[in-house]
Amino acid sequence: MSVPATYDVVGVGNSLVDVIAHAEDHFIESEGLVKGSMALIESDRAVSLYRSMGTAVEMSGGSAANTMCGVASFGGRAAYIGKVADDDLGSVFAHDLRAVGVVFRPGNPEGEMRTGRCLILVSPDAQRTMSTYLGMSSWLHPGDLDETVIADAQVTYLEGYLFDRPEAKEAFRAAASTAHSAGRRVALSLSDSFCVDRHRDDFRGLVRDEVDVLFGNADELCSLYEVGSFEEAVRAVRRECHLAAVTNGKDGSVIVTPDGVIRVSAEPVARVVDTTGAGDLFASGFLHGLTSGRSLADCGRLGSIAAAEVISHVGPRPLVELRRLVTF
Amino acid sequence: MSVPATYDVVGVGNSLVDVIAHAEDHFIESEGLVKGSMALIESDRAVSLYRSMGTAVEMSGGSAANTMCGVASFGGRAAYIGKVADDDLGSVFAHDLRAVGVVFRPGNPEGEMRTGRCLILVSPDAQRTMSTYLGMSSWLHPGDLDETVIADAQVTYLEGYLFDRPEAKEAFRAAASTAHSAGRRVALSLSDSFCVDRHRDDFRGLVRDEVDVLFGNADELCSLYEVGSFEEAVRAVRRECHLAAVTNGKDGSVIVTPDGVIRVSAEPVARVVDTTGAGDLFASGFLHGLTSGRSLADCGRLGSIAAAEVISHVGPRPLVELRRLVTF
Repeated sequence: MSVPATYDVVGVGNSLVDVIAHAEDHFIESEGLVKGSMALIESDRAVSLYRSMGTAVEMSGGSAANTMCGVASFGGRAAYIGKVADDDLGSVFAHDLRAVGVVFRPGNPEGEMRTGRCLILVSPDAQRTMSTYLGMSSWLHPGDLDETVIADAQVTYLEGYLFDRPEAKEAFRAAASTAHSAGRRVALSLSDSFCVDRHRDDFRGLVRDEVDVLFGNADELCSLYEVGSFEEAVRAVRRECHLAAVTNGKDGSVIVTPDGVIRVSAEPVARVVDTTGAGDLFASGFLHGLTSGRSLADCGRLGSIAAAEVISHVGPRPLVELRRLVTF
Repeated sequence: MSVPATYDVVGVGNSLVDVIAHAEDHFIESEGLVKGSMALIESDRAVSLYRSMGTAVEMSGGSAANTMCGVASFGGRAAYIGKVADDDLGSVFAHDLRAVGVVFRPGNPEGEMRTGRCLILVSPDAQRTMSTYLGMSSWLHPGDLDETVIADAQVTYLEGYLFDRPEAKEAFRAAASTAHSAGRRVALSLSDSFCVDRHRDDFRGLVRDEVDVLFGNADELCSLYEVGSFEEAVRAVRRECHLAAVTNGKDGSVIVTPDGVIRVSAEPVARVVDTTGAGDLFASGFLHGLTSGRSLADCGRLGSIAAAEVISHVGPRPLVELRRLVTF
């Protein structure tokens, strides 16, 4: 048992503002995008894609940042480490974390990069297709990590997207090492099946050696273990990981441990409007449960509640206090 | 009859991005704000109020700009003149106009000001309270007006808010003069009852001498003529104005001409979510009708349709193509 922690969870991730527009499937195809995926884009492409998109709404996003907002919304003590520029979108990002009580450690802005942004196209069937210009967020390096905060959090939560840039990957490993040295746990979100594809060997090694809690969806797990079915993926992760929470869309989720598999239903949703943030918010509920001593089944239920809230509206963060939705 | 025009309407106004958060009434009171009104704030106050607001969403706004987006959404040919800075919010503002087909003439950025923003608190009863930091938008001066566009638009639409800064007021008068010299019409929106209060004499003179189409709501008209009832205000405006469209919330609107008064019902709305933009969008429908040769009663109905759409969701601009909602 480690010493009491000031924070339940500290997230480390890419600090992005989401730029959200509705788009028909033919637009997504005509732009050469893969529906449902996340692609990295450079500055020029961000400009040209934005130019062709319709009226947009700007909201703070970023996978791990969304998750920390969810933890705080459940009443948990959350912190977040990530890098923004000294510009309008950087101010928006910082404001929206602090507004829900997340302690933000932004590191220092440097160079000429702008705050990162994620251009999100929401299809009529509520799926989202993301094109991310990482900007300043990709400059996150080990020197930006507030080690005191990491050592003082029960769980350090890292998003797989960090692996897409060398400096951030280094920060990822440094954060995991700091957390473990302090006797804390490390959680990883696989983020996206294409991201897993790009970094499969690294992720496999991490999951075996350094990750205490793994988050991913069926596609991501199948990609990680190069298997064809959800059940095979669950068997594979069970052999290699202490604790994994695997989501499977409307079929709910399974919590996988060496001792067994717990199945958790999805919460009913009147109308799915925008699936952005579903995985991020599932992780927030699960982590809040885990850090407040709930059973694994209840952790899964909290995850389902948070995911159901966020897919019922546009945007990647809860619009109501999640603690009010907990009735058990 | 003047020569054919390239544009149906050109709007001139304060170019603002809305920063929208939900807030309880006690928060609005504790911040010393007057519910339902628009107050101008300076930079320091914008920072401190933003800091105390909850999670926000950013969307392009600005009264006349919202109206022009409505005109374009009906299928009309709209242009817009207003000033933004070369920053993230300026890019957002420009993008969202062009995305719906509004021709944007931004003038030149100058000085150290940032793009203007309007901090909007939406109450549980859907009323909005606005605190506006004008920033770059208040630097609009006559030299920023594209006179070719104004001379080439059937109607030049000016928002009353422009009167809050001397340079913009000068631009307002110059735009009206250019429009009339080209044989075009000038429309004015009174904007806000406090704005009318601040500039009553100016507005009274303008309405008598320069305004061809007046837009306002019951409160604004009562303030303009310093009368206590809607009916008195309607009688007063009828004496002084060729054509006025006066909205009165859920009671609909009245179209006032020297020949008589036409009453138009409000469109039913399943749930009023956020009244931001109601007046702006009413004006868009009315102006679209007027510039496409509709009867005054139909102009009013188009206004009601647009207003009903915009109050059914968060944000000041339509989320669907308004032309699709026209069934008559």
